Amino acid sequence: MIKAVFFDMDDTLYDTSGFAAIARRAAVKSMVNNGLKCTEKEGYEYLMDIVKEKGSNYDKHFNVLTKEVNGTDDPLIVVSGIITYHNTKFSMFKLEPECFSTLLYLKTQDYKIGLITNGKELKQWEKLVRLGLYPFFDQVITSESVNIEKPDPEIFRIAMARLNVSSETSLMVGNSFETDILGACKAGIQSMIINSKLTEEQKNIIKDNKYQVTELSSLIDLMDIL
Amino acid sequence: MIKAVFFDMDDTLYDTSGFAAIARRAAVKSMVNNGLKCTEKEGYEYLMDIVKEKGSNYDKHFNVLTKEVNGTDDPLIVVSGIITYHNTKFSMFKLEPECFSTLLYLKTQDYKIGLITNGKELKQWEKLVRLGLYPFFDQVITSESVNIEKPDPEIFRIAMARLNVSSETSLMVGNSFETDILGACKAGIQSMIINSKLTEEQKNIIKDNKYQVTELSSLIDLMDIL
Repeated sequence: MIKAVFFDMDDTLYDTSGFAAIARRAAVKSMVNNGLKCTEKEGYEYLMDIVKEKGSNYDKHFNVLTKEVNGTDDPLIVVSGIITYHNTKFSMFKLEPECFSTLLYLKTQDYKIGLITNGKELKQWEKLVRLGLYPFFDQVITSESVNIEKPDPEIFRIAMARLNVSSETSLMVGNSFETDILGACKAGIQSMIINSKLTEEQKNIIKDNKYQVTELSSLIDLMDIL
Repeated sequence: MIKAVFFDMDDTLYDTSGFAAIARRAAVKSMVNNGLKCTEKEGYEYLMDIVKEKGSNYDKHFNVLTKEVNGTDDPLIVVSGIITYHNTKFSMFKLEPECFSTLLYLKTQDYKIGLITNGKELKQWEKLVRLGLYPFFDQVITSESVNIEKPDPEIFRIAMARLNVSSETSLMVGNSFETDILGACKAGIQSMIINSKLTEEQKNIIKDNKYQVTELSSLIDLMDIL
């Protein structure tokens, strides 16, 4: 009998990658309009290379892009990118209806709900607050706050201890096989993968984890049989 | 004959302090609503002490406030402050009509226009872009970009060199006696103080600087006699 459901956030509860891609395209468009010497397509490709190299938490992507393309980091071009990126991202920060209704359902059924997310404490909390998601969660565990990242099973153990539940009564829901599913598996927790498909090889690795849902709302139907 | 007009930005071209005060009050209100254990009035006073102590460019005012008041820096309270502060500030970022018309007048009369501002390069540029001000300026000099702050006369000399004008044909407009007026004076530049009143003692110090305007638009009338 499942008592607690743990969620990953990015690309599980909302389309982080999709939002970021649109916001980055908008940013590059604005930068090209303000003097970045390349096409929008080239600029976006360069930017994605920089994001890949520096990581998504690096805070000077637009400086590096401007410097690489133009030779100098003209502040007008850099801030045009920053402002457009943030304006676009914030204007898109809306919770999908199916996410809201799924969390609401779990809440009304008295499940405990936890969030286990890799990322910076305040950056992840900002998303929770802007999305209006945080009141659903009994516990929020960010990797920065506990200094352990998924897939380390320890972060799942910390989460279970905080909600006072065991691995037998817990379920993990996430989009990444490597971090969410394997991590939960190592901690002995049943898991569901969402927005992603498992390969045959992956299915073999986690034989006991038979649930794969393509939409978050399917979780409601599955909860009845768990 | 004046050929170039140099402006300070904060509290000269727009009401930086007024905007910041409103945004900080809004932030504290949101923090109290989310669990900051004090009244809004107390919270605002604590916050202003922290801003005074750490400086306005410090980026963890809300963390310190939460920690001081509640004992821990609860991320929900911190990000509530940050989000409300930014939302409020950005929604107020509008140029006053008199600022726009004054700059437009100078532009149509073929004056060169420069900005000399103490602050961080990207932070100051962000304001210029959000306000839609930057197209008016032939040169923007931030203290961070040249590593010299007003009232050091050297920053005024750099600005004049960039616009290819002399101190005799330049005018500085700012709100601060200490940084704008005294600095310009040391560089041999005529200046106008705005949004502020000079004391008798200050008037004595800058005997040659006879222009004191209370509104930016008055500058238009004064330009005819310079």
